[in-house]
Amino acid sequence: MGAGPGDPELITLKGIKYLQMADVIVYDKLVSRELISYAKPSCSVILLSSDDIEIDLLKKYALENKLVIRLKNGDPYVFGRGGKICQELIKDGIECEVVPGVSSVNSVPAYAGIPLTFNGISDMITVISAVTQGGRLFDFKKIPDDGTLVVLMSGRRLEEVSKELMTKRDPSEEVAVIQRGTYFDQKVNVTKLRELTKIGNLATPSMLVLGDVVKLRCILWKSS
Amino acid sequence: MGAGPGDPELITLKGIKYLQMADVIVYDKLVSRELISYAKPSCSVILLSSDDIEIDLLKKYALENKLVIRLKNGDPYVFGRGGKICQELIKDGIECEVVPGVSSVNSVPAYAGIPLTFNGISDMITVISAVTQGGRLFDFKKIPDDGTLVVLMSGRRLEEVSKELMTKRDPSEEVAVIQRGTYFDQKVNVTKLRELTKIGNLATPSMLVLGDVVKLRCILWKSS
Repeated sequence: MGAGPGDPELITLKGIKYLQMADVIVYDKLVSRELISYAKPSCSVILLSSDDIEIDLLKKYALENKLVIRLKNGDPYVFGRGGKICQELIKDGIECEVVPGVSSVNSVPAYAGIPLTFNGISDMITVISAVTQGGRLFDFKKIPDDGTLVVLMSGRRLEEVSKELMTKRDPSEEVAVIQRGTYFDQKVNVTKLRELTKIGNLATPSMLVLGDVVKLRCILWKSS
Repeated sequence: MGAGPGDPELITLKGIKYLQMADVIVYDKLVSRELISYAKPSCSVILLSSDDIEIDLLKKYALENKLVIRLKNGDPYVFGRGGKICQELIKDGIECEVVPGVSSVNSVPAYAGIPLTFNGISDMITVISAVTQGGRLFDFKKIPDDGTLVVLMSGRRLEEVSKELMTKRDPSEEVAVIQRGTYFDQKVNVTKLRELTKIGNLATPSMLVLGDVVKLRCILWKSS
């Protein structure tokens, strides 16, 4: 189930209903703690640690006939491993339902005053994760040189990512760097692509947005 | 404000709170009627007709110091004209806030059993609207030939769209055609790209999904 991007008010009504019904909620440190308060008193609430084998944990409780929710930041089917998790559980005869959430892809730029599309400015959106499952860097040759580009998960490898981006996009292009978007401690910087690494290490989660839509922020964003 | 993709349970908590506070709600026929029931008794609820000049209508009520909500299917900043509307209102000194919604881009494929990304299968998402503002056909030369491709708004020009898609993608590739995704009357067909036009005219809203992730539907989807 998708928890939404960070702001706990971006959970869906369907999400709240399921959180109230769950016997077990498995979440991780990106999920806002406020959401756990919807759990019924008898619910087992488990914060996933890096030692846990996620799928085995979900399987264990599901095979005890419990209603288990894996609560994930954003949307589970957008770079969320949701497909893989469901595939593994279904193999063991466990019934799965995917509850979509507000994806960080659209909501994080919105909270920073950036629409992903705008008539006459951008009519195509491309979304990638800079670091793929297993820690490999994304093959940047594949990205189009036009339109809006959303780059997830570049936090710790900004130097490599910025070098790769400059092979396809104009170094003088503006990039929005959004750290912890929609969380209470959101931080937004706009810089030229060639100066991107000056930002330093990024907080988790972080996002880069490239394309002419970034320029709209100065019109559409307000701090209040 | 984004209403979510069709299923009224995919509205956000923030969305419900604002609907309960609004003095005026302006919506259109794609928005689920159930959502209007959150309005307070004194709220003016306006179904936008094709004769209405949307921005003038919003401006009129906002300048009367009313809390006006423009409730839109999906997310207002993903092919939703939300940026344009805010730009025009801000020009007249009207304060705007964008409330993101669950976008149809991720939720409609999810309700059809299709994850947009999957480790080893697809690590890039491209989203376009087949028909752009003003009725022009999208320039399909721009789309990448790889990864997941989501095509919105191809309903009435499927013949042209299918021809254009085949200039960049393999005609034997599978395409998921999702009509009224997440609504109670959702319909999903999977066909080869070269046979796409056999589906005939599509209901509104409709979406095409291309890429190897479409093959996962037979594992991940269940009708119940």
